[in-house]
Amino acid sequence: MKLLCSQTELHKSLQFVSRAVATRPTIPILNNILLNADARKGQLSIIGFDLSLGIQANLPASVEESGTVALPSRLFGEIISKLSDETPLSISNLNSNNQIEINSFSGTYQVSSIPADIFPKLPVVENGIPIRLEAESLIRGLRATLFASSNDEAKQILTGVHLQFNGQELECVATDGHRLAVLRLTHGVTDAGVNESGVTTENYAVTLPTRSLKELERLLSGCPSKEDIKLLYNEGQAMFIWSNQTLTSRTLEGIYPSYQNLIPTHFAQSITLDRKALIVALERVAVLAGKSNNIVKFICDSESNKLYISTDAQDIGSASESITVDFNGAPLQIAFNVQYLLDGLKVIADEIIQILCNASDTPAILTSQAEVRNFTYLIMPVQIRD
Amino acid sequence: MKLLCSQTELHKSLQFVSRAVATRPTIPILNNILLNADARKGQLSIIGFDLSLGIQANLPASVEESGTVALPSRLFGEIISKLSDETPLSISNLNSNNQIEINSFSGTYQVSSIPADIFPKLPVVENGIPIRLEAESLIRGLRATLFASSNDEAKQILTGVHLQFNGQELECVATDGHRLAVLRLTHGVTDAGVNESGVTTENYAVTLPTRSLKELERLLSGCPSKEDIKLLYNEGQAMFIWSNQTLTSRTLEGIYPSYQNLIPTHFAQSITLDRKALIVALERVAVLAGKSNNIVKFICDSESNKLYISTDAQDIGSASESITVDFNGAPLQIAFNVQYLLDGLKVIADEIIQILCNASDTPAILTSQAEVRNFTYLIMPVQIRD
Repeated sequence: MKLLCSQTELHKSLQFVSRAVATRPTIPILNNILLNADARKGQLSIIGFDLSLGIQANLPASVEESGTVALPSRLFGEIISKLSDETPLSISNLNSNNQIEINSFSGTYQVSSIPADIFPKLPVVENGIPIRLEAESLIRGLRATLFASSNDEAKQILTGVHLQFNGQELECVATDGHRLAVLRLTHGVTDAGVNESGVTTENYAVTLPTRSLKELERLLSGCPSKEDIKLLYNEGQAMFIWSNQTLTSRTLEGIYPSYQNLIPTHFAQSITLDRKALIVALERVAVLAGKSNNIVKFICDSESNKLYISTDAQDIGSASESITVDFNGAPLQIAFNVQYLLDGLKVIADEIIQILCNASDTPAILTSQAEVRNFTYLIMPVQIRD
Repeated sequence: MKLLCSQTELHKSLQFVSRAVATRPTIPILNNILLNADARKGQLSIIGFDLSLGIQANLPASVEESGTVALPSRLFGEIISKLSDETPLSISNLNSNNQIEINSFSGTYQVSSIPADIFPKLPVVENGIPIRLEAESLIRGLRATLFASSNDEAKQILTGVHLQFNGQELECVATDGHRLAVLRLTHGVTDAGVNESGVTTENYAVTLPTRSLKELERLLSGCPSKEDIKLLYNEGQAMFIWSNQTLTSRTLEGIYPSYQNLIPTHFAQSITLDRKALIVALERVAVLAGKSNNIVKFICDSESNKLYISTDAQDIGSASESITVDFNGAPLQIAFNVQYLLDGLKVIADEIIQILCNASDTPAILTSQAEVRNFTYLIMPVQIRD
């Protein structure tokens, strides 16, 4: 292997790829990244892979001699990050031993490498269903749902985000059993394509691990908003491809719960209020709620048009706040987990929002008039005794 | 207790004071801060004290009823930090129980308090030696030395910074046995005073714990540079007083080593070089040096006028850098701990610096021509076998 490439480009690619390198892997080789220099393409590819999530970044390089090598991810990344970008870096392997030599403007570095053939192969999705998405839409779908998936590994399929394609629409769904976030994207799903076997994407669904999608959201944040993301998937594996990057992820097995039946369609009470005012009040009350069980109580009636929010942390203290709202329905008393409320409030794009409910023990909905057809955040109330 | 005060002022004071609150104290009361409202002074004092370091902040308050109370530092600080600053906060104790009530613009908070008499008394230095220092000078003295003190509690007096007053001069000194930093302040020591018993500050010295002085440096960073800091000390206790704040600290016992004898006065070799170029090169080499023993080797001769810096981390890799220098003396080969070098280089105020040495096993000095009389950083070389 022998090549010249830009320090800036290499550093950026290493930062991306390192997100898929396990910090304490079960197999030592997974501490490494794979470098693949291709003279024909004039390209250096870098791959990080933890057996579940894989990230590949390609950068232009003038490759004199093709070659593949595995290098310790962290050490190599640290060295490159500190080098000068005044002149291109030269990277080559010394034939005498298994060392890679990096030559920069001011110095020379040698790093012990590992034979590339030990590094596990990154899965490739062949003949999968292709879907095209705009970066902006996909980011929005992920941000609106990722937080609501379960952290409990025992809950298997609920540890992921469910992507449901219905023709030209994409529904992103996540739930941990206590709350459910559903975002429907009607724009930016630019091509519900047909694969080579003629199977269309109509009514196809896939559930991907939250961790993979969190990294995808991070990587896409740096993309132009209209960047075209191609999603390919088949049983067991999904692959997102855009500009010079590829992210592959295993899929989660199992049948995703039929969440649509859980969402009430009629509501006896509605609170219309300012989103930011509610966030600020909840964040204050959360300081004390956090000292016991995170429960906050809402009391509201149509006469005062005030929402009273309170919490009581026994032996420690108590808090109460009130905000002006527009209330419709019979007097309301209901309690929620304050963190669940805050999570949902933070992803609603509108400033005037609605809380819709029926009783203190049936699901409530957070939404906005503008978004009512597209975003639904369902939250189960907490039972309280007075 | 009943008072009105500004949320902004209270929040700022609580942030200062919380630095002296132990996170996992041996005695539970030390988790708390003391609030003292004084109607006559129109002042609220807040005290944090971990039995070694104490910080007091005073803020203006319209006090209707004087009183003293202890409150959980973290919880009270978090509540205040989130409250609105639109209107003054009202703080009062409810006579019915041991709760403090905070009323803000939008809500009401109650926090369980602890009787103030359990809270340990903050030591007061009476009839101590008073010295006046400018904030700017004291900060400079602390930054140039704090890093060189020992972290090893067994080294007792070396875990502190030694302050030596010689008439109108202050010498700040720290050493951990491997390196020694000495900064002499000739400006900004505005008053080597006389105490009430007529004892002057000539040739007085005190050694204070690094932790206390780190907090002092932090607190002073927010001060105007010419702010007048009064230092009072006697056996066992020192007290820094400025504007609305006081920091008290126990002193370290023992006799500080006579460091002056350790500093060579003649040198066989000198390297004159650009400080930033050396820092950048060392930081690069440090990535690999850090993988083994932090040792970097310097090789230099007067013919090439190049300083070669290298390190070798067995089985992992190696690194070498070179920078242009001005060298005088017989060819040099010497090794150092790279972190010790970087620590010293980062506090030298000049851009052209000097490394002075005699042999590969005798102390070297980092200094600058402009500062040679005021700042000395001595560093012991590391023995290497070739």
